[in-house]
Amino acid sequence: MMSAAEQTATATQGPVKIVGTGLLGTSIGLGLSMRGVEVLLSDVSPSSLSLATHLGAGRPFEATDKPKLVVVAAPPEITGGIVVTELDAHPEAIITDVASVKVAVRNSVENSNVDATRYVGSHPLAGRERNGPTAAVGDLFVGRPWVIAVGEGTAPRAVLMVRDMVVDLGGIPMTLKPTEHDQAVALISHLPQVISSLVAARLVSASHTSLELAGQGLRDVTRIAASDPSLWVQILALNAPYVVEYLRDLHRDLGSTIDAMDSLALTNELPEPAALLQIASVIERGNDGQALIPGKHGSRPTEYDEKVVLIPDRVGQLGRLFEDVGEAGFNIEDLELEHSPRHPTGMARISVLPGCGEELERALIERGWTIVG
Amino acid sequence: MMSAAEQTATATQGPVKIVGTGLLGTSIGLGLSMRGVEVLLSDVSPSSLSLATHLGAGRPFEATDKPKLVVVAAPPEITGGIVVTELDAHPEAIITDVASVKVAVRNSVENSNVDATRYVGSHPLAGRERNGPTAAVGDLFVGRPWVIAVGEGTAPRAVLMVRDMVVDLGGIPMTLKPTEHDQAVALISHLPQVISSLVAARLVSASHTSLELAGQGLRDVTRIAASDPSLWVQILALNAPYVVEYLRDLHRDLGSTIDAMDSLALTNELPEPAALLQIASVIERGNDGQALIPGKHGSRPTEYDEKVVLIPDRVGQLGRLFEDVGEAGFNIEDLELEHSPRHPTGMARISVLPGCGEELERALIERGWTIVG
Repeated sequence: MMSAAEQTATATQGPVKIVGTGLLGTSIGLGLSMRGVEVLLSDVSPSSLSLATHLGAGRPFEATDKPKLVVVAAPPEITGGIVVTELDAHPEAIITDVASVKVAVRNSVENSNVDATRYVGSHPLAGRERNGPTAAVGDLFVGRPWVIAVGEGTAPRAVLMVRDMVVDLGGIPMTLKPTEHDQAVALISHLPQVISSLVAARLVSASHTSLELAGQGLRDVTRIAASDPSLWVQILALNAPYVVEYLRDLHRDLGSTIDAMDSLALTNELPEPAALLQIASVIERGNDGQALIPGKHGSRPTEYDEKVVLIPDRVGQLGRLFEDVGEAGFNIEDLELEHSPRHPTGMARISVLPGCGEELERALIERGWTIVG
Repeated sequence: MMSAAEQTATATQGPVKIVGTGLLGTSIGLGLSMRGVEVLLSDVSPSSLSLATHLGAGRPFEATDKPKLVVVAAPPEITGGIVVTELDAHPEAIITDVASVKVAVRNSVENSNVDATRYVGSHPLAGRERNGPTAAVGDLFVGRPWVIAVGEGTAPRAVLMVRDMVVDLGGIPMTLKPTEHDQAVALISHLPQVISSLVAARLVSASHTSLELAGQGLRDVTRIAASDPSLWVQILALNAPYVVEYLRDLHRDLGSTIDAMDSLALTNELPEPAALLQIASVIERGNDGQALIPGKHGSRPTEYDEKVVLIPDRVGQLGRLFEDVGEAGFNIEDLELEHSPRHPTGMARISVLPGCGEELERALIERGWTIVG
């Protein structure tokens, strides 16, 4: 089956050389190849290169090839050096990279003697739990933001060439300065990563009983704590100047919170009003910040109606539930599955448009479902 | 339709008096009433009492009633005082409460002159996004842990009576000391709440562009930051001694992380190995802690196979997907919906048993679905 993206015309002109055939490089290769673009693959690892080629991401690069566009998809800390090498090796080509930090890469390029106008960094906000070429899929970037980090002196044709590739791959191009990008990801990605890891680290010495009480809140806060240490050491080291600012702000806020809670822990009297106000403001500012995160389709989060439905743990029950929801004429706007400790059932939290909750509940009860929230 | 819990015999003997007809009190009243137990309702708010009665949670308590069991379901900070009043008013009854902190409530009771052996605190780990009697449902506690916090000198018949009610309501009883309970929830609930709020608070001054790059990681880490400030001020104030210890540990770890990142931010040389090791250990200890959180059915998380499927934003598409998954013979072990900014599609991340991923992918592609991860 051809997806909508494959059926439309392709703007990217090959050959495109991809340096690094891990998850991102191979996914780009697959996406471009399936759109008919000629892709040349290169990797220091012969086995990775062989796999990516076998999977259909392109053919191995040869010394006589003349790529129009080079995409460097290497580990962040060596990306800058490879960009410089590629600028030098292909004096007619536009070079981009896909590392998740942009200032450090740009600095490496500008501190070299090569012509930096042909380089424009980029960063697709896409990924998977698994790494390597075998995890790659050509549609990895569909619907995901892909930042194009335009520096001073970047040639406009470089920006347009990368933008064409992003759109061809189904990504949503967003043009930012490298500093804007690094500050943004420090806040929305690197800060939450460090904090999630620090919260999860506190569980190492937890009792089994404590862990059995764990609910969805703890699971959500610590999900990204499962991330790859070797990748994150590079990201955090390369974006340290921005990340450390946000960490410092949070450290200061946490210090004030601890002071307020200390004064409450020590008193047997009527609690100190200043301390209560301080704690209330932590939760209230959290409310305000959380409400700013865009929901579905980039809009502000809608206040959906929610219903929680009990799901027997048997094959096909979720299918039956969603069939019933669809038949009753509702669209599921959001959905979460919840699990219970030592209990052979799950719960599905279904969000529907505001005002539809009661009607959905009736429709599901009629069809034999148990609503538990 | 009768659920399995309703069809079995009920151990709880009424009358049960419920003091406080908010979400928890009214849900307990509904659950017991639908199992044929006589329930007596009491609330300082005549409108809340009227609503709970109308909804079928019980009848209003009268001065001549003689309850066998009293459940105090009031805001945490006034729970202790009400427990004392009820112990005094009903000298034959067993008294419990459902507040989310247990030591502070027990201290109030023990510091009074009443017979504390008839009191045993409890805490159902259940809740909803909405509050009040109209949000109540009799099955709120099905499959959820419900801690029974047994103090020194608690009468065994008090424990058994509360345990019977918990099991009748479908909850999973777990017996802990009050101190064990408060320390456990400080770690698995109160610490993540404060930290999630502090991370979300940093978004208040974020640029619109930064927020548009927000992905599932930030959404997960900050979801519980939407919690009710007035309730959380009480919980955090009453459990301050335990919570502040965990906050202090995290503050210290965060301080070391900041020092390490500072030394990386300042250098243009080869990065300091001690700082890199420090950052790697933050992520690695986070990996270790996250892996300890029990997954479905209280067991260690299984490494499921995951497939990400593109969902067109039209009525019934999720239903069609799950019908197809069920027809192909797979059970969905876990599921997450993801949204893309400014894009009219969503993605469903489906987990199936290890080894089934490839087969599921083939089955879905055959049925016309696009797999993007």
